[in-house]
Parts: sequence; C-alpha cells; structure tokens
Amino acid sequence: MIDMSRLRVLLAVTLPLLGSCASPHGDRNRDQSQAIEAVIRAQESAWNRGDLQGYMSEGYLKSPELTFFTGGDVVRGYETVLERYTKRYREGGKEMGRLTFSDLETINFGSDTGLVRGRWKLVFLDKKETGGLFSLIVRRTPEGWRIVHDHTSVGEAP
Amino acid sequence: MIDMSRLRVLLAVTLPLLGSCASPHGDRNRDQSQAIEAVIRAQESAWNRGDLQGYMSEGYLKSPELTFFTGGDVVRGYETVLERYTKRYREGGKEMGRLTFSDLETINFGSDTGLVRGRWKLVFLDKKETGGLFSLIVRRTPEGWRIVHDHTSVGEAP
Repeated sequence: MIDMSRLRVLLAVTLPLLGSCASPHGDRNRDQSQAIEAVIRAQESAWNRGDLQGYMSEGYLKSPELTFFTGGDVVRGYETVLERYTKRYREGGKEMGRLTFSDLETINFGSDTGLVRGRWKLVFLDKKETGGLFSLIVRRTPEGWRIVHDHTSVGEAP
Repeated sequence: MIDMSRLRVLLAVTLPLLGSCASPHGDRNRDQSQAIEAVIRAQESAWNRGDLQGYMSEGYLKSPELTFFTGGDVVRGYETVLERYTKRYREGGKEMGRLTFSDLETINFGSDTGLVRGRWKLVFLDKKETGGLFSLIVRRTPEGWRIVHDHTSVGEAP
C-alpha cells in the first residue's frame, strides 16, 4: 500500500528539485549555443571590415591541429589556413567581398564540443556571388570557443 | 619544508594509480575509434556489393534528424538521403562504381560522439573517377555508432 500522505510529501520535496535541475540544463545548452554562434558572428564582422587576421584569430584554433577541408583539399594548421585565405582574398589587392552566414544550427556535444552548420555567401562589388555550406567543429578553449575543424563546400542552393 | 619520506610514500601510492588510469583511457579511446571506423568500413563493403540499403542502414542514423550536406544542398532525413543516393546511383540501371575510403582520421568527443574524416573515391567501369572529402559526426546509439551529420565535398586531391 502506498501511503498517500508520504507520497505527497515526497513529491512536494522532489518536484521543485527536478524543475530546478531541468531548467538550468536547458539554459546552459542555450547559453552555449549562443556563445558559439557569437564567435561565428564575430568572424563575419571581421571579414566584412576587411580584417582577415581578426577573422582567423577570433574563430579558428591557433594550432597546427586545425583542419580545413574544402572540395578535395585538406589544409592543416592555422598558418596554412591563413595563407590560403590570403592568397584567395587579399593578394594583389583582391577584394574580400561581403560575407553572410545564414541558417545557423548549433548542436552541443556535452559542455566543451559542438557542431555549427549553415550556409555562407560572398557577394562582390560587381554583384558576382559565390556560396555554399559549412560544418564547423568547435571546442571550448581558454580563449573561448574556437573552430578545430572546418568543412566548407561550394555550390548554389538547389 | 617538504618531508621527503612522506613525498616518497605519496608518489609510491599515487603513481601506479595514475598509470592504471591513463592506460585504460587510451585503450578505450582506441577501441572507440576502431568501432567507429568499422562502421565506415561496413558501409564501404555494402556499397561495393551493390547493397545501397545496407550502405544506408549500417552507417546512417535512421531518423528525420539525419543531415547530409554536399555542395550547396542540404538533405534532411534518412529517407530523403536514401532517395538521393537511389536517384544518383541506382535508378535506370545506373552503376554504383567501386568505393574506397582512405586517410581516415577519428577524433572522439567523450564516450558517445566522434568525428570521422577522410577521402572518398568512386571508380566506374569505364575508368572514370570522382571523389573528394567527407566529415562525419557519429553518435553512439543502441544499434551501434551511426552517422548523424555528413558533409561531403567533391574535388580532386591537389
């Protein structure tokens, strides 16, 4: 037999505890996603003020372990990734274009790793456009959330 | 002042503990990477025996949450991904080609999530080839490790 008065006391004690557990967890998840997305937005801003160094340092892990996959090219290490961006978007007075990220989706894997995916688009002064998709693995570091692996593909939305 | 005899006793007690912690952790990490890579290899085998259903069910999470990014295309849900493969590699007696995965690298994020990245190549009977890179997010499920997000790009190795 269940003693209803004891059950009622038990529920009165445990339910608020359950509530206070569930809610901060959801909040933490949302806070984490927002912190990760803020890093991606900071990259977007840096790019659009022509600050390639800022785009790199605010987003990517400053490490030889950083990887950047695109098409069939594997680029390894922070310096090599910076070099690639410099060659494509800066050298010889090249135009960086206006960068927009959209359709951002963040998935947290525990409290120190996440995936951010979405769409990128670059529009140049002559109205020419390029764009595609990205999947970024981000990790929590002492400097904040940083991209450790970037897979970027080129292609129009269908 | 450090009491050297106490320090020696402390080290004698703690060092073996550290050793016994580090080794199973490394083993577990290696076991996990092997389990994840076995799933990718099972997919490769299924493809090469012309078993597209097996390729799908042995690798991908059977869920509407599954995502497949390629070029500028976002494909959502197991059934839609299967449909896309069927259209490209099966319909109208199309040839699936011989699939090879290489340069596999697995990174574990805790005990239930990982990233597998590498190179893919398809060779057809007329010797024509296509290939590129993939980044897969895998998660531990009751059925085993399954891909929850696939970003695949097309392009020759540089």
